[in-house]
Amino acid sequence: MSQDLRRRLFDELESIALIDPHTHINALQPAAVSLADILGYHYYTELAHSSGLARERIEEPGLSAKEKVARIVGSLAPLENTIQYSWFVELAQVLLGFKDDRLTPNNWEALFNAAHQQMAQPDWSAKVMKQSKLEAVILTNDFDDPLAGWDTRVFVPCLRTDDLVFHFAKSSVQERLQRASGIAVKNAATMRQAIGKLFQHFTSKNCKLCAISLPPDFSPTKVDAASADRAVQAALESGGTISAAHRRDLSNFVFWMLTEFCAEFRLPFDLMIGVNKAVYPGGVYQGQDLFDSRTSLVQYLELLNAFPQVVFPISVLASVTNQELMTFAWIFPNVRTKGHWWYSNVPVYIEHDASARLEAVPWTKQIGYYSDMYKLEFALPKFRMYKRILAKILAERFVINRGWSEDRALTLGRDVLRNNVDRVFFGKTG
Amino acid sequence: MSQDLRRRLFDELESIALIDPHTHINALQPAAVSLADILGYHYYTELAHSSGLARERIEEPGLSAKEKVARIVGSLAPLENTIQYSWFVELAQVLLGFKDDRLTPNNWEALFNAAHQQMAQPDWSAKVMKQSKLEAVILTNDFDDPLAGWDTRVFVPCLRTDDLVFHFAKSSVQERLQRASGIAVKNAATMRQAIGKLFQHFTSKNCKLCAISLPPDFSPTKVDAASADRAVQAALESGGTISAAHRRDLSNFVFWMLTEFCAEFRLPFDLMIGVNKAVYPGGVYQGQDLFDSRTSLVQYLELLNAFPQVVFPISVLASVTNQELMTFAWIFPNVRTKGHWWYSNVPVYIEHDASARLEAVPWTKQIGYYSDMYKLEFALPKFRMYKRILAKILAERFVINRGWSEDRALTLGRDVLRNNVDRVFFGKTG
Amino acid sequence: MSQDLRRRLFDELESIALIDPHTHINALQPAAVSLADILGYHYYTELAHSSGLARERIEEPGLSAKEKVARIVGSLAPLENTIQYSWFVELAQVLLGFKDDRLTPNNWEALFNAAHQQMAQPDWSAKVMKQSKLEAVILTNDFDDPLAGWDTRVFVPCLRTDDLVFHFAKSSVQERLQRASGIAVKNAATMRQAIGKLFQHFTSKNCKLCAISLPPDFSPTKVDAASADRAVQAALESGGTISAAHRRDLSNFVFWMLTEFCAEFRLPFDLMIGVNKAVYPGGVYQGQDLFDSRTSLVQYLELLNAFPQVVFPISVLASVTNQELMTFAWIFPNVRTKGHWWYSNVPVYIEHDASARLEAVPWTKQIGYYSDMYKLEFALPKFRMYKRILAKILAERFVINRGWSEDRALTLGRDVLRNNVDRVFFGKTG
Repeated sequence: MSQDLRRRLFDELESIALIDPHTHINALQPAAVSLADILGYHYYTELAHSSGLARERIEEPGLSAKEKVARIVGSLAPLENTIQYSWFVELAQVLLGFKDDRLTPNNWEALFNAAHQQMAQPDWSAKVMKQSKLEAVILTNDFDDPLAGWDTRVFVPCLRTDDLVFHFAKSSVQERLQRASGIAVKNAATMRQAIGKLFQHFTSKNCKLCAISLPPDFSPTKVDAASADRAVQAALESGGTISAAHRRDLSNFVFWMLTEFCAEFRLPFDLMIGVNKAVYPGGVYQGQDLFDSRTSLVQYLELLNAFPQVVFPISVLASVTNQELMTFAWIFPNVRTKGHWWYSNVPVYIEHDASARLEAVPWTKQIGYYSDMYKLEFALPKFRMYKRILAKILAERFVINRGWSEDRALTLGRDVLRNNVDRVFFGKTG
Repeated sequence: MSQDLRRRLFDELESIALIDPHTHINALQPAAVSLADILGYHYYTELAHSSGLARERIEEPGLSAKEKVARIVGSLAPLENTIQYSWFVELAQVLLGFKDDRLTPNNWEALFNAAHQQMAQPDWSAKVMKQSKLEAVILTNDFDDPLAGWDTRVFVPCLRTDDLVFHFAKSSVQERLQRASGIAVKNAATMRQAIGKLFQHFTSKNCKLCAISLPPDFSPTKVDAASADRAVQAALESGGTISAAHRRDLSNFVFWMLTEFCAEFRLPFDLMIGVNKAVYPGGVYQGQDLFDSRTSLVQYLELLNAFPQVVFPISVLASVTNQELMTFAWIFPNVRTKGHWWYSNVPVYIEHDASARLEAVPWTKQIGYYSDMYKLEFALPKFRMYKRILAKILAERFVINRGWSEDRALTLGRDVLRNNVDRVFFGKTG
Repeated sequence: MSQDLRRRLFDELESIALIDPHTHINALQPAAVSLADILGYHYYTELAHSSGLARERIEEPGLSAKEKVARIVGSLAPLENTIQYSWFVELAQVLLGFKDDRLTPNNWEALFNAAHQQMAQPDWSAKVMKQSKLEAVILTNDFDDPLAGWDTRVFVPCLRTDDLVFHFAKSSVQERLQRASGIAVKNAATMRQAIGKLFQHFTSKNCKLCAISLPPDFSPTKVDAASADRAVQAALESGGTISAAHRRDLSNFVFWMLTEFCAEFRLPFDLMIGVNKAVYPGGVYQGQDLFDSRTSLVQYLELLNAFPQVVFPISVLASVTNQELMTFAWIFPNVRTKGHWWYSNVPVYIEHDASARLEAVPWTKQIGYYSDMYKLEFALPKFRMYKRILAKILAERFVINRGWSEDRALTLGRDVLRNNVDRVFFGKTG
């Protein structure tokens, strides 16, 4: 009975048109062009590598798409239990007509060829979006992205700011900022002018949020003007090397300034908290990062108190930080819970974390899910995974445990799955 | 089948008469006098505020009870998913005859008026206690509470000591201590005399425990006599300001002394570990506190080892600390697990945490639940929430997974729900 | 239906022959000789002690086995809810023909006598292993164990190295090393020679891994040769006392060297991370240790990066560290997840932690369970507990949630329960 109920709720959730509130889609090339774009996703390369496939085999220069897929397929067997593998199988079955439930050395080539053909159709992206019920996706754009050449109502820009906050000591970043803003940064004041230009440009192109990913030890604080100036000077003169103290002041200064611009331009500031970059340097591309569970949202108290007018959708990388996130959204008017990020995007953790939010955070403040995808094909299986879990939570915790009607439970489901994306990023009310 | 089993177990648990082992009830005014006392509970004001209602609207001076309720009701819709909201609906339905399942701008006034009438009946408190099967509740009394004017067998005193441990540098606290004890504190020795008087007074009035809430970075240690004296002197001469070192010594000295008095007077010392006070100063009354998940019971090792004769019922604020609590109760004879506090008082966390305790801590050492309520009306829905979860755990983890009879499971349920309160605080054996 | 499915899967898992990949079995006396060996297990003595039984009653010198059991039985009632107690009942019922479901002052003596008789049979160990479907167990051997007198294919040696890493400043440890290796340690170089001899000896006796348990604050790093030499000198001349800095250098030096030998001898290095030893000195034997949840695998990044050629099966003591373990195994080719250790060996934590691993770590990299037992009798109930949970996870998360066939789910179960032990420790492939 509980399983029938879950299925009914899932079927209803499946009918909802989606806006994916965080992706890494390239708007100029949103869908895959071959199976190598699918199986080259870091979830597969890193798991294949951690199961024994050498990085050099995966990342060999000049490797054809077909040979790359052949090599990865040869190392997929150890992954067949993983939820990540299930994403692949589900998208292959639904979008590509794959009939099996495993990809093996015996059946991959047929799928590769069929995919190649389908992906070459001019309407492939549109078809994938339609089958996935995707109305729009929010992108992750470099601060110097021209944001030209696509419909920004469908592929909605997002100003990603990691480079500005953490890598401004690199001359390449300085040069990119000058080119993008038309302003030569000489000090803190001109840096503020330059970044202001970015916000003008981005918001003129339908940008709906600013975003950043943050290491576990980051604890933003307001720095005084003199320290900010010294840090900017140090970065400009550094040739890439800069003292730890200057680096910290610089990050804090830029981060705080970005938040001020978010206030001025009325943009939510998406905080993705907890990633330790490049801790396994021997890993494959995008498969070198982990987290540290000894992180706390306490590190963000000064920020959240200083900017009551800025909305902060927050993602945490560690499930053990989710209860803090729940309580911060419970208490702070300017906090939103957002999705289940990366290493917490695993069913057992999604269920535990989403249950807590659904039971104790006002429903208006919860953005249920985002795909984090690089290619459109992944929205379908990732959102389905989430919707199955959401259906389970609604069935068990609301219909069964609390006596709600299915309709009432579905209203809650619709809000966290879709309507709150409109509320938080597109200013819709009611 | 599993749901029928859960219901049968719940129905049996419902028949148990309760003593609520931790509340903030005012014994001279234990029940609500209007719906404003119910919806003015910080769980509603803070969630309404975090959903968009300005603090100034809620806390406007001179606001009538009716207008306050009207304003809160106008902001309740975003909370309807929360378990906190379900407490309100269940108490309104069971205690006040409310027929709907939502409180809205259309139906609140009738409930307000009906509540006003019922709460004005002279036997309202008694009626609520009877319907809630509450035999007694343990209070939270300021150290200078005269403890007069009520039946202390029903409203049982508890000596709350936060002010003494953390705020003795304030002259107001010093004056309250002098008034309450009749002793002028001049140094560590006279402070001990004064506090000893408090213990005499409280235990003469049926006080059954000493209690305190503790910040996440507190790590009690014994300080030497000279440091204690210097810290007390500093507090007496401070006019409210005191160095961090003196403050730490003072807190440690007073805390340790309180524990010594608990040993002498044979009182359990209730430790509520992990709250970060006033971290959101813009929040509503009682809605400004959060926690830090980077807390460990390791900080209490010196204390637990030094006082084997003192029983320490322990509450933790973070679910991620619950496994430590489970193991401390598993190993230390003087530790008891106590309830599901505040931000962990959410079904998904209660189930996870209570399951661990029921599976690995001797049943004699577990105090299942307390309401933490300010008004008697909340015992019913909060305990019911817990009992539903307890019934689920007993059904799934004991009857189904371990083949226990329902009777045996209920015996365990009765012990953690009621009998252990008698064992720990009222000295009953067997 | 779900319960029938769980039962069917459990029954199939029950048919699998096991190798227990971590135990403290004494190969010369692997099974209990009386019920005192069973109820003397620290799980019972520490829980009885924490429920009120004085340590002195349990550890009184000269106590007979029978009297010891009588005393423990008198304090077992408070433990009847615990999963630890259920292990006892299940082993007594299955292995010893016990007919009741509780051991009480009224029925214990009959069981004691029956057990005494059965355990005196010369084939008792073999019988227990057969009933438990145990083909072999991996031991925990002191570094100076002669490893003689038993079949090392059944009782497989493991080089346990805590003493070398953490206690080499003790002259007793220095003397044991000299005796075992035949080499007088004078400096870092001769220490390396001595430890090399141990690896030669152990691997010549079918040793399949090196192992160590580690405190929560350990963070291994490579020390330079001069520091290593000074630390070894300090230890040799210390008479047991050594500065904190030398102690740290010494531990790091020895630990790093052991890892180098693991590389040279192609042994996995089993890391059991997180135990705080002797934090409750008043506790019973082996019942004085706890953990600190503020531990992170981040502390092992340098090690894991430095030794890609060494396989590290990792156990974590805190369930809150399990997500880190999951991600480390997901990313690092040389990490394996191993079992559910000690304070995380409780059903609610096993289910949460194992689910995460099964959903996101390649199946080839997971060693599902070990018993950690001191006497053979405990393999049966501990593995059954795990298999019931594994059956539940396979039923709910794979067959129901993901539509797997029961056969496919069982294949996964067989791999984590048995085949991966062969893969990781016995070099079997495929």
